[in-house]
Amino acid sequence: MKLGVIGLGRIGTIHAENIKKLSDVELYAVSDVREDHLKNMAKKLGVRKAYKDPYELIEDPQIDAVLVCSSTDTHADLVIACAEAKKHVFCEKPLSLNLEDVNRMIEAARKNKVILFAGFNRRFDRNFRKVKEVVEKGEIGEPQVLKITSRDPEPPPIEYLKVSGGIFLDMTIHDFDMARYIMGKEVEEVFATGSVLIDEEVAKVGDVDTAIVTLKFKDGSLGIIDNSRKAVYGYDQRLEVFGSKGKASADNVRENTVAITDVSGDHTSKYLYFFLERYKEAYFEELKTFVKNVMNNEPPAVSGEDGKMALVLGYAAKKSLKEKRPVKLEEVMK
Amino acid sequence: MKLGVIGLGRIGTIHAENIKKLSDVELYAVSDVREDHLKNMAKKLGVRKAYKDPYELIEDPQIDAVLVCSSTDTHADLVIACAEAKKHVFCEKPLSLNLEDVNRMIEAARKNKVILFAGFNRRFDRNFRKVKEVVEKGEIGEPQVLKITSRDPEPPPIEYLKVSGGIFLDMTIHDFDMARYIMGKEVEEVFATGSVLIDEEVAKVGDVDTAIVTLKFKDGSLGIIDNSRKAVYGYDQRLEVFGSKGKASADNVRENTVAITDVSGDHTSKYLYFFLERYKEAYFEELKTFVKNVMNNEPPAVSGEDGKMALVLGYAAKKSLKEKRPVKLEEVMK
Amino acid sequence: MKLGVIGLGRIGTIHAENIKKLSDVELYAVSDVREDHLKNMAKKLGVRKAYKDPYELIEDPQIDAVLVCSSTDTHADLVIACAEAKKHVFCEKPLSLNLEDVNRMIEAARKNKVILFAGFNRRFDRNFRKVKEVVEKGEIGEPQVLKITSRDPEPPPIEYLKVSGGIFLDMTIHDFDMARYIMGKEVEEVFATGSVLIDEEVAKVGDVDTAIVTLKFKDGSLGIIDNSRKAVYGYDQRLEVFGSKGKASADNVRENTVAITDVSGDHTSKYLYFFLERYKEAYFEELKTFVKNVMNNEPPAVSGEDGKMALVLGYAAKKSLKEKRPVKLEEVMK
Amino acid sequence: MKLGVIGLGRIGTIHAENIKKLSDVELYAVSDVREDHLKNMAKKLGVRKAYKDPYELIEDPQIDAVLVCSSTDTHADLVIACAEAKKHVFCEKPLSLNLEDVNRMIEAARKNKVILFAGFNRRFDRNFRKVKEVVEKGEIGEPQVLKITSRDPEPPPIEYLKVSGGIFLDMTIHDFDMARYIMGKEVEEVFATGSVLIDEEVAKVGDVDTAIVTLKFKDGSLGIIDNSRKAVYGYDQRLEVFGSKGKASADNVRENTVAITDVSGDHTSKYLYFFLERYKEAYFEELKTFVKNVMNNEPPAVSGEDGKMALVLGYAAKKSLKEKRPVKLEEVMK
Repeated sequence: MKLGVIGLGRIGTIHAENIKKLSDVELYAVSDVREDHLKNMAKKLGVRKAYKDPYELIEDPQIDAVLVCSSTDTHADLVIACAEAKKHVFCEKPLSLNLEDVNRMIEAARKNKVILFAGFNRRFDRNFRKVKEVVEKGEIGEPQVLKITSRDPEPPPIEYLKVSGGIFLDMTIHDFDMARYIMGKEVEEVFATGSVLIDEEVAKVGDVDTAIVTLKFKDGSLGIIDNSRKAVYGYDQRLEVFGSKGKASADNVRENTVAITDVSGDHTSKYLYFFLERYKEAYFEELKTFVKNVMNNEPPAVSGEDGKMALVLGYAAKKSLKEKRPVKLEEVMK
Repeated sequence: MKLGVIGLGRIGTIHAENIKKLSDVELYAVSDVREDHLKNMAKKLGVRKAYKDPYELIEDPQIDAVLVCSSTDTHADLVIACAEAKKHVFCEKPLSLNLEDVNRMIEAARKNKVILFAGFNRRFDRNFRKVKEVVEKGEIGEPQVLKITSRDPEPPPIEYLKVSGGIFLDMTIHDFDMARYIMGKEVEEVFATGSVLIDEEVAKVGDVDTAIVTLKFKDGSLGIIDNSRKAVYGYDQRLEVFGSKGKASADNVRENTVAITDVSGDHTSKYLYFFLERYKEAYFEELKTFVKNVMNNEPPAVSGEDGKMALVLGYAAKKSLKEKRPVKLEEVMK
Repeated sequence: MKLGVIGLGRIGTIHAENIKKLSDVELYAVSDVREDHLKNMAKKLGVRKAYKDPYELIEDPQIDAVLVCSSTDTHADLVIACAEAKKHVFCEKPLSLNLEDVNRMIEAARKNKVILFAGFNRRFDRNFRKVKEVVEKGEIGEPQVLKITSRDPEPPPIEYLKVSGGIFLDMTIHDFDMARYIMGKEVEEVFATGSVLIDEEVAKVGDVDTAIVTLKFKDGSLGIIDNSRKAVYGYDQRLEVFGSKGKASADNVRENTVAITDVSGDHTSKYLYFFLERYKEAYFEELKTFVKNVMNNEPPAVSGEDGKMALVLGYAAKKSLKEKRPVKLEEVMK
Repeated sequence: MKLGVIGLGRIGTIHAENIKKLSDVELYAVSDVREDHLKNMAKKLGVRKAYKDPYELIEDPQIDAVLVCSSTDTHADLVIACAEAKKHVFCEKPLSLNLEDVNRMIEAARKNKVILFAGFNRRFDRNFRKVKEVVEKGEIGEPQVLKITSRDPEPPPIEYLKVSGGIFLDMTIHDFDMARYIMGKEVEEVFATGSVLIDEEVAKVGDVDTAIVTLKFKDGSLGIIDNSRKAVYGYDQRLEVFGSKGKASADNVRENTVAITDVSGDHTSKYLYFFLERYKEAYFEELKTFVKNVMNNEPPAVSGEDGKMALVLGYAAKKSLKEKRPVKLEEVMK
């Protein structure tokens, strides 16, 4: 099986390097708009083809599947082109900031019978997967309250924020997907509140940097997501599900198991700094799952519909923040 | 200093027994409407006087201060009678379910120059106090997000729920007080959502058994409270404050420090079952603080205004749940 | 039931105050060689009688049982006098530094049919009791390796060390008792090694301040005790039992459950500083057990024989350290 | 740089696969006495040469360095042949069970100016490295007591035990190396005790399956190692260093960070099962260090002398167990 990667930014490079570690799969071609970068990376990765134009990569008849890791605004056209070229496609999150585009992507994949895999890497974290398994097996009974804490170590540049779609579509979107994944049920209503507490510049681009989102699932169970753009102590990724028979929680991940004890108490190690460290293994598991799904012609582990629902939740949160009221998903769903 | 206790239910008895452990303070008189119970308890506690009529206790010239631990609907009249008799008064939470009554209680204490101490025992828990201290010292910088988890091991009887004022005035009221205490700032707006997930009977009395309340403080910082009436694993009392320089969290309290490790992992001990076990020490610290406040003629550690604000927050949450929208405190404040 | 306490030092005072908290038991008399201290304490404790001469206390016909908390060298004569006066007796650890004296104490109690209770307070710590229970129930299978860590926060004064009998009879004696208690079996052989690593003065009085003792039980199972006279981080009291089906461990006890997380990781609270804090509850449980044993005319929870065996283990460790070889208990047992 | 691997058992295969993951290094040749296995592995690993005779591999002029992973009895001759062929050599632990052989290996490497790297993988575990760093930086002051717990999940086959050299040379040898590594000082005296508690067959081959070794370092600081061949709960690898300013401890490693809380308490995940899982990352770090040492012509991170000292400690422990007395290293050192 031969794979192509479009977009060799931070995430595209992770995927490309992970492909190299797999047997039975070849990293055949890469594409990037920055010519020099493309050349360097192509050499470093040892690929056969390096296309400046991503559509040439998509059209290359040697390629079986494509990973779309370019900027969000290019996702829709590239994914649809992949589908029409009968290539299976892995698309980084968010599929698009535009719901109609997402609908078109899903439709293109359906019509052309290719797999559209939405890149929600956190589903493949060993800790969250374990919680999912515990919930699914009924070990904590009926899930009643889900709590997700998700904090970044540092805010992205303001320039990035301007085009990011806002905190709910850029950052919380991961947590929206996680909420649906862990609970195994759909959300009915969203209430979002937020503030600018870290950097006043964020307010100027119409966004917030600290947010809380309350979810009400269709069966009445509840969810809370709390986000911050800046946790000085590092990436904070935890969740807890409370159910009728108990609770399951996934704690954050530390650098090591060492504790130092001195006159002021016990001191344990730092959390892993950011997503590259924390989700390194998860990115690899995600890729393996995509490859397995393609090889076995299975439905993707994370579908285009999953990508769409996370976006819909983001829309609802955005509307809720703006209109200062709870918003039902049907109000924003198309 | 001589004390009287009105109401010898579960909490009144704790206070009475704690008074016995203090030196320099005498448990002089008790009062309870149940004549037999009163006799037995008076004997067991070794008090000088046992009054069926609480107003006789209040009028007893030997008594310096009174603890009002009778049913909530009697608080206002008793507290006001205490104040007029120039007795310092400790009043169990909630001060009243009626905001006008609370205003009258505060006014009576003010006018008669007596201390009105609101019985929010959790402020005296060693763990939460430590978090308060950490926040006050600025160790975590500016507090931005507060998260309180508060779950009971078992729902009270439906009969109790009917007169309780609902989950926000009965249960969350503790968390509202804790939120103000820990953050050291006032709430501006409340959004509450809830469901009946444990017992259908709760719906019939117009209440919920699982709830999430989102708080927005006046400076934009945020808070979340999640409540459940039934955590099968025992009383769950935790909180976390996230700030610009780090976070501080108080974990729940276990029976012991023992861990058993077997083929399925590590197993630690149970949480303390309920408030009598968990807050045993806190009740004693609370009483000592009340006595100290009276003896030193200090402002009470927890004031009537504190009691009022917790009630106002409960009103706002109730209104929010009913009207399905965020509610500003000024809408319910009188 | 009326009790007398001989010796109002640190431990004697704890016992006296604990007796005051019990119902059905009266602290009837106290005795101390320091006249002023005796007067003050007698008044503070509100006892009926204060004897400078402990033998007068023992002879007082009103007294049912005596707690001997005076200096170790007085234990034997006082305990024997108690026994002969038909008073049940609680004796602080060590019963004596002289094995023949201990034999005489045990014999006196046996002949006069009184209870001789050896004051090993740690057996009553809730954490260690839980481990004992786990081991006894077979939850970890057959116990194979016991590990005890026991470190003091600060060394005692050199003057104290001179008369203490050395680290094994003064400090490790608690751990020897704990080893027999937890494992429920007898030791056959002891190997001790030690060094002076904290204070050179300790070497001058012929003692060590850091020690490791290896135990071999009669069935071949093994034990390790590690001691230090100075853990800067506070009292360190932990143990672990490893067995054929798993392990059980009791962690040290902290001041609170708060953790602060900052750029360098998680920071939890200090350990409780020393035995008065750590074993406060255990001392009370110990006293209640003694009272219960006396009232029910039961065999004592910790017997004179238990006190003797801990001493024998101390003798063996001392001999092992001196002779640099493992020592069998029969070599030092009389 | 071209590498050859001799011996494609469990460990040799790990090293071979790890070499494949490195850039700038080529796995050039492999050797194994089992012809079929050699063919299969050579194909799977994609190496240029597969030698049945390890000496042919050693003589291959293309090869720069060799990893000796064959059975222990072949180490000495192979390592010496490598040295004489001017090949740098990595030798799995133990270098040999024969001290004279080890001396010859060290001498051969010295004379031929090649690196002899002793394969103590645990030194490269991120947790133990962190403790080493903490100790070296003086964060816990002067180290006084080291405690190592090292337990396997299951005993090896009796056939293996017969040729293993006994628990101290086969299993504890890792801990002896760890003790020297962490403490950064040499041992003077060893006392070992042990029992057969798991499988009676072990006694028949003259070995023990449960052991405790006490170490006395030259400066008087102390160490304890406790070993068991069978911890039902999985591989148990922990250590603690206690010093004049505090303690540092490395806890065991779990499968994930998930905790489930139910009516009986908190339940965390299992430990990683055995060394392949636990030290996966450490093996890779070890290999990278060997390659780096060779490339930079540095002294090896773990030297032949280190390999020798671990063996000497094993000899001393063996002698101590047999003669039931503490043994000084000079008694067994040659």
